[in-house]
Amino acid sequence: MSQNRQFILKRRPDGEPVPEDFALETETRPQIGDGQFLIRNHYASLDPAIRGWMDDRESYAPPIPLGEPVRATTIGVVEESRAKGFEEGMWVMGLNGIADYSVAEAGGFTQPIDADAVPSVTNYLSLFGAVGMTAYFGFLDVCEPKEGDTVLVTGAAGAVGSLVGQIAKIKGCTVIGIAGGPEKCARLTERYGYDSAIDYRGKDYEALVAAIGEAAPDGLDIIFENVGGDILDAGLMNLRLGARIGLCGLISEYNSPPVGARNLWQLIVHRARIQGLLVPDYLPRFGEGAQAMGEWAAAGKLVVDEHIDEGIENAFDAFMRLFEGSNQGKMILKI
Amino acid sequence: MSQNRQFILKRRPDGEPVPEDFALETETRPQIGDGQFLIRNHYASLDPAIRGWMDDRESYAPPIPLGEPVRATTIGVVEESRAKGFEEGMWVMGLNGIADYSVAEAGGFTQPIDADAVPSVTNYLSLFGAVGMTAYFGFLDVCEPKEGDTVLVTGAAGAVGSLVGQIAKIKGCTVIGIAGGPEKCARLTERYGYDSAIDYRGKDYEALVAAIGEAAPDGLDIIFENVGGDILDAGLMNLRLGARIGLCGLISEYNSPPVGARNLWQLIVHRARIQGLLVPDYLPRFGEGAQAMGEWAAAGKLVVDEHIDEGIENAFDAFMRLFEGSNQGKMILKI
Repeated sequence: MSQNRQFILKRRPDGEPVPEDFALETETRPQIGDGQFLIRNHYASLDPAIRGWMDDRESYAPPIPLGEPVRATTIGVVEESRAKGFEEGMWVMGLNGIADYSVAEAGGFTQPIDADAVPSVTNYLSLFGAVGMTAYFGFLDVCEPKEGDTVLVTGAAGAVGSLVGQIAKIKGCTVIGIAGGPEKCARLTERYGYDSAIDYRGKDYEALVAAIGEAAPDGLDIIFENVGGDILDAGLMNLRLGARIGLCGLISEYNSPPVGARNLWQLIVHRARIQGLLVPDYLPRFGEGAQAMGEWAAAGKLVVDEHIDEGIENAFDAFMRLFEGSNQGKMILKI
Repeated sequence: MSQNRQFILKRRPDGEPVPEDFALETETRPQIGDGQFLIRNHYASLDPAIRGWMDDRESYAPPIPLGEPVRATTIGVVEESRAKGFEEGMWVMGLNGIADYSVAEAGGFTQPIDADAVPSVTNYLSLFGAVGMTAYFGFLDVCEPKEGDTVLVTGAAGAVGSLVGQIAKIKGCTVIGIAGGPEKCARLTERYGYDSAIDYRGKDYEALVAAIGEAAPDGLDIIFENVGGDILDAGLMNLRLGARIGLCGLISEYNSPPVGARNLWQLIVHRARIQGLLVPDYLPRFGEGAQAMGEWAAAGKLVVDEHIDEGIENAFDAFMRLFEGSNQGKMILKI
């Protein structure tokens, strides 16, 4: 290809992103300089965190500049190289852009990956990537599970949640999942091994409090929180003494002003904690996490689902699945 | 006295307590049975937590029954006894009622105290009581301060806050306090040794965010939170990586529906935590805390202020000082 299609951020979304916030633009295939290499991107990881990078506010990562491709973790093949250690034909993964091509530099965030070591190279975006490592370290390190603990996972059928639920079962916990719709709830118990599932659709705050209370009559030792809003507030009303809440995401508020949690006073009542987590902190331990996840997967204890939409022209619709909840597994775009 | 005046909870307050929620009732001095003793209450500790016990909701302590005296920690003298270990004339402290007399039992929450061991017996309600131990363990155990940390204390001139600020200085931290009004702010820096003071009065959320940012340009390692609402949300916008928030109280919301914290997403950005705390958990370690606090006080490193209002007929006004912020130090009622 001599052309480079790019999924460009044209303006900052006001609340929920709309198609007009983006544009598919085509430029000439970029040139590389000394120390650089050209990646033909094959897959892009679509994550809720990307929504935050579209805003013009300080966070752990800088905002995506307007007029630039939407930032995402991508997997691709080196097509040209003037950088040591990155040879033509090599598979690489890095924080690049949703585009046919990206230019990267040696010593940056882009690293070689071994496509032959895994069942599918896309597993580097799920089981062995940020998603898998978030589930592994976010649950084991931040939530400190003990055998017999009662665990609530919100966003339980999502990329991270479905892995957390399965790890919790491996660790001997009783696991309750919250998800949207009967299909997803069936997946929780039938495919991921959750002990019970709560469908949040059609339930107001009071009904959520009651449903969690019914599923966990003795209360929750752990919440792995991906959602926020009423779902988090309902979880907080069902804590046990010394509960640990791992705060992984707040997808319910990414397209609107933050609401946080009203029932913070429950932390005092139950001497509980909310601890924020972000996976890059565990980079030095990714090897440990990947090995454990790989062994569990190989032993059939862990299933990983990937939802792959095709075509860069479908980037917007594919990304919005995360907020509609219409994806089944880790959301990936095949470019 | 043959009569027993009692500060009775007549109905549950709807939001802010009003005088009509209470009544001063007089009954005959109660009789004791076997294993019981009669306490002549001299002092009652007025604490924000009492407001929570007036509501009809489950918490760490049961609601105060309607028609009964308002529950409080009191200090008094045993006037009659049919219980082993509790002799007439002995000073005792326990969770009893705001009344001239309480009947208690051996083996309950009421324990003897040594009035001669402290400068004033009321110190058992401040420095050596729940207030002092909340400051000591809540700060050292939950917030894990390190030398050089930047610490924000909210409700900084209050009974707990003023002690936390001083302990933080003893531990080599830079300490910022938030309080209401210029007088209290002057007390923070002049009397308690805070490095700087922020007057929250007349400041909206944005102004609070800016004021904290100015006082702590590199961000906060620790927040010791007594207040909640906009003050907590503004603190959350000024965190450093790995910040620890000790959640001791949320006095701003005790008379209204809970608001919690909107800016919970900042916990993810900064991998920070909010940990609820409640002092009874540290009962087995009170000896350790009391010794440290006593030594610091004796060495002139720690000042403790007590605000003592007199007369059970003034119980309502004295209690409401906690929410008006018109007390200067630990609020105590001399019955």
